[in-house]
Amino acid sequence: MMEYNIAVIKGDGIGPEVVDAAIEVLNEIGKKYKHNFKYEEVLAGGVAYDVYNNPLPEETLEICRNSDAVILGAVGGPKWDDLPGDKRPEAALLGLRKGLGLYANLRPAILFEALSDACPLKPEIIGEGLDICVVRELTGGIYFGDRGYKETEMGMAAYDIMIYSKQEIERIAKVAFNMAQKRSKILTSVDKANILESSRLWRKTVEEVAKDYPDVTLNHMYVDNAAMQLVRYPQQFDVIVTENMFGDILSDEASMITGSIGMLPSASLGENNKGMYEPVHGSAPDIAGQGKANPIATIMSIAMMLKYSFNLSEESENIEFAVKKALDEGHRTLDIVSKGDNALGTKEMTQVILKNI
Amino acid sequence: MMEYNIAVIKGDGIGPEVVDAAIEVLNEIGKKYKHNFKYEEVLAGGVAYDVYNNPLPEETLEICRNSDAVILGAVGGPKWDDLPGDKRPEAALLGLRKGLGLYANLRPAILFEALSDACPLKPEIIGEGLDICVVRELTGGIYFGDRGYKETEMGMAAYDIMIYSKQEIERIAKVAFNMAQKRSKILTSVDKANILESSRLWRKTVEEVAKDYPDVTLNHMYVDNAAMQLVRYPQQFDVIVTENMFGDILSDEASMITGSIGMLPSASLGENNKGMYEPVHGSAPDIAGQGKANPIATIMSIAMMLKYSFNLSEESENIEFAVKKALDEGHRTLDIVSKGDNALGTKEMTQVILKNI
Ligand SMILES: CC(C)[C@H](C(=O)O)[C@@H](O)C(=O)O
Ligand SMILES: CC(C)[C@H](C(=O)O)[C@@H](O)C(=O)O
Repeated sequence: MMEYNIAVIKGDGIGPEVVDAAIEVLNEIGKKYKHNFKYEEVLAGGVAYDVYNNPLPEETLEICRNSDAVILGAVGGPKWDDLPGDKRPEAALLGLRKGLGLYANLRPAILFEALSDACPLKPEIIGEGLDICVVRELTGGIYFGDRGYKETEMGMAAYDIMIYSKQEIERIAKVAFNMAQKRSKILTSVDKANILESSRLWRKTVEEVAKDYPDVTLNHMYVDNAAMQLVRYPQQFDVIVTENMFGDILSDEASMITGSIGMLPSASLGENNKGMYEPVHGSAPDIAGQGKANPIATIMSIAMMLKYSFNLSEESENIEFAVKKALDEGHRTLDIVSKGDNALGTKEMTQVILKNI
Repeated sequence: MMEYNIAVIKGDGIGPEVVDAAIEVLNEIGKKYKHNFKYEEVLAGGVAYDVYNNPLPEETLEICRNSDAVILGAVGGPKWDDLPGDKRPEAALLGLRKGLGLYANLRPAILFEALSDACPLKPEIIGEGLDICVVRELTGGIYFGDRGYKETEMGMAAYDIMIYSKQEIERIAKVAFNMAQKRSKILTSVDKANILESSRLWRKTVEEVAKDYPDVTLNHMYVDNAAMQLVRYPQQFDVIVTENMFGDILSDEASMITGSIGMLPSASLGENNKGMYEPVHGSAPDIAGQGKANPIATIMSIAMMLKYSFNLSEESENIEFAVKKALDEGHRTLDIVSKGDNALGTKEMTQVILKNI
């Protein structure tokens, strides 16, 4: 029996509810396929600040480092919004990404057919559905460059440095090309090379990496144009690779055009299949603790974990199938219910999915 | 008779065609309201590179500086795409913005009712129409900060600096608050204050300026969320103010969600009502010289010029009315024609609009 060590960060708001639901599903998979999933719960985010005065205690990072994968619910909430930057729950995210070397953020933007009514785009634009994967660089760029204040001709000014080395660009480009190879073999690299030096290095490096993937068609697109094209003609995209900040903006836009944002998972990967898995949605403090949250995004994140960190494709697909079936059968949580449907709570939805495993 | 001195940059691609059309309309306004519009044509963009080996000759900048306003068609095209950054047509745009001190870029995203079929969003999201104005800072931020290469732990790295002084933020915030005051009194300031130092200064400064506008409701939004909300619920926005790069991305996204991008004007303003006016669309090299281009975006830019640089509101509204009437009557150029309509060329559409003045 294989043993997998998983660090569990439930976090804030609805985090604990959706993580508990996902772990039930994972245990069911363990039973069915005879894997031993071992969990170690650690604190990060607002809840860690409340206990340790630190959103990411060193012990949490250490345990995550020694685990095979990390599951994260969500962090943040209005309670902690006025804290200084390094005390805020979001600082835990940045610390985990950098501390675990998770440089590749995979954000699939999929339209769940059963939810196509929720899609904000017209049916003729959506066509047969949407299936885009944004590969966002996650440990470089303006998120991690120096920042501060300096004197200028215009007076004191605040600055942030966007910076990328060739090596950082190469490794994320490889992740994206490998993914494109397994999908439709079309990769769009997004930058602002008509203005930014870091984007010019980005483009040049991606071109170089492309030589090792002659079967993949590479397109370049400026970020402003990409923001337009996602709305105008999303069908043109399959895999999109871009730097940290552009990826933050475009992956959120891509999620939203699917109309399924409450359903979308994400994976943040480093070397050796190490990964952190979390739903794209936030901590939703307004419905926390009420048992209403939709667990699907977290359950789908678990499916990504099985695939990317544990190389268990069949198990992963079993979860995806169970979720799809639950939706096809008409089951809905409050966030995705439409007139006539009956809204299930977190636990009830989880039970339906469990039955389909 | 008032005399207005206008520098005219026809530029590349369809630039000359649409500018000629707009000038015809402006002359008609001059006749009707007894103004003397004087034009001085100057070169910038690819065409200037071809003649002077410089996309923005000093003489062009000088003449623009001494004019009351600048009309610009479009610059750029595949012919010049492989030139080094400072020789490319886009460099002329940056040079004009900085050289003329045009720090406030106004980009109205309006849904032309007659074109609502072209809108990519579902009717229930669009509701009664869309009327958003993006106020983009245009002479600061990562567009004009230092950039280059430096040695790092990860090897040689390319960097770009995003930098803002308080003074730069104040003056653009004032433009946005003034505009919000004249519209629905709701202003959304977009930043990434959870990560960027320059965004934290942005937010703090906008808050300070807000004290002088107690009648305007100010909201802050992170840029990733703004990219989502524009698709999910665009009705929540009226005036959006943001820094240069975020404004580049969000104003293009906002234009696209209207479905009317070929129709949208822009104004870039400095002190003393100095301004440069240009259509949002590009140089469209594929249809250049064929007399097919839609002149409406440029004609609407002229309307903005009359309003913002010359303070001629009635004349400006006359143009807007004439354009709206032409559309309501069913006239369409090739880019916006749908089945059953008859496509007009640039000149024919211009004639229709002229008749409505
Ligand atoms: C919370 C915030 C710091 C974070 C980011 O900007 O990376 C979030 O938007 C995300 O995309 O995970
Ligand atoms: C052409 C390019 C340099 C320019 C910009 O990024 O500002 C364009 O996208 C714009 O929005 O006017």
